[in-house]
Amino acid sequence: MRREIRIRTVARESLEEITAQVQQVVQSLGVDVGLCHLFVPHTTAGIIINENADPSVCRDILEVLGRLVPRDGRYHHLEGNADAHIKAALVGNTVWIPVDRGGLALGRWQGIFLAEFDGPRERRVIITVLPVGEKGDGSSA
Amino acid sequence: MRREIRIRTVARESLEEITAQVQQVVQSLGVDVGLCHLFVPHTTAGIIINENADPSVCRDILEVLGRLVPRDGRYHHLEGNADAHIKAALVGNTVWIPVDRGGLALGRWQGIFLAEFDGPRERRVIITVLPVGEKGDGSSA
Amino acid sequence: MRREIRIRTVARESLEEITAQVQQVVQSLGVDVGLCHLFVPHTTAGIIINENADPSVCRDILEVLGRLVPRDGRYHHLEGNADAHIKAALVGNTVWIPVDRGGLALGRWQGIFLAEFDGPRERRVIITVLPVGEKGDGSSA
Repeated sequence: MRREIRIRTVARESLEEITAQVQQVVQSLGVDVGLCHLFVPHTTAGIIINENADPSVCRDILEVLGRLVPRDGRYHHLEGNADAHIKAALVGNTVWIPVDRGGLALGRWQGIFLAEFDGPRERRVIITVLPVGEKGDGSSA
Repeated sequence: MRREIRIRTVARESLEEITAQVQQVVQSLGVDVGLCHLFVPHTTAGIIINENADPSVCRDILEVLGRLVPRDGRYHHLEGNADAHIKAALVGNTVWIPVDRGGLALGRWQGIFLAEFDGPRERRVIITVLPVGEKGDGSSA
Repeated sequence: MRREIRIRTVARESLEEITAQVQQVVQSLGVDVGLCHLFVPHTTAGIIINENADPSVCRDILEVLGRLVPRDGRYHHLEGNADAHIKAALVGNTVWIPVDRGGLALGRWQGIFLAEFDGPRERRVIITVLPVGEKGDGSSA
């Protein structure tokens, strides 16, 4: 069960919350208990799970990454987005979320964010859902 | 096959080894060959696989994270734990470990650590085990 | 479906592209739609997906990691490779890649790199491929 969503980012750097879109896809697939895999097929964007209650957390994450990996540092890659590649490598391009009762089983404060480091662009997220069964119950994966 | 364990952390920051608890859960599930997924449903804690022979490695990891993301930095999130959110985002909240012969197939020096960045608290880890079969052998996942 | 590949690294630090070896293993397994898991069973090496078109990106990633986690920093772990453990913890030791039409469904610019931080050594990568089916089609995982 694989689906794809597209996200249009609007700034060079942003954390775009995609929890609702992913939830909608997962719920449409009818998997009661399972695991949801998200994969970003880009090299200057990543994916993060973190707090979605206070948007300040996202600003803080981007500011710290910008301090650790400055945009105007000295880099060998000369396309002006070396920092974006490095940030994507640090953050990672994949997450997995448990699925329970047909939907994402995120923690109370967790949201899913596409991490854009070289936008604005249209980005893709590949969603795969695996059912998980109890042993020997016939629905086991 | 999904289970949950709880870990009581005892300091603001620590790497708490949970290898034995996870191993016990995995062995109880009776999966010969598979994959074990661990998910931390929190936004100020993460999960790391690294050396468990010398506890100094854990101290070093926490000290470097504390230097890169200082607790008393300037942050927009005003709850006093912005650094913890950022560290959790860098470290990640999920790992996968191969299961072989009914148990975790970790490397010789690898242990699993809950990374507490805003404790002490009770933390949860969601464990999911997927069987993996050889193609066409009837137990394939 | 689990296989193992071995990579001989040739420097203390390097990003060794392993995309072709992984692709070959995946194609040999005959899984049409699925997910490919890569696991590095070491504590001073990790795994990264990032750009493979311009090798400068790899140099930049290693240089930034070297600046954030200097080799000659003050560490408690006294084996001379504390930086390597910390880099491995930051980068992570596992990735997942969608499989489509029998092969890796990487993005246009993505390659898979073993991240060596304490070489030269022989390193192992454990590859597991899970089939993914559409619900109720009999091949579902």
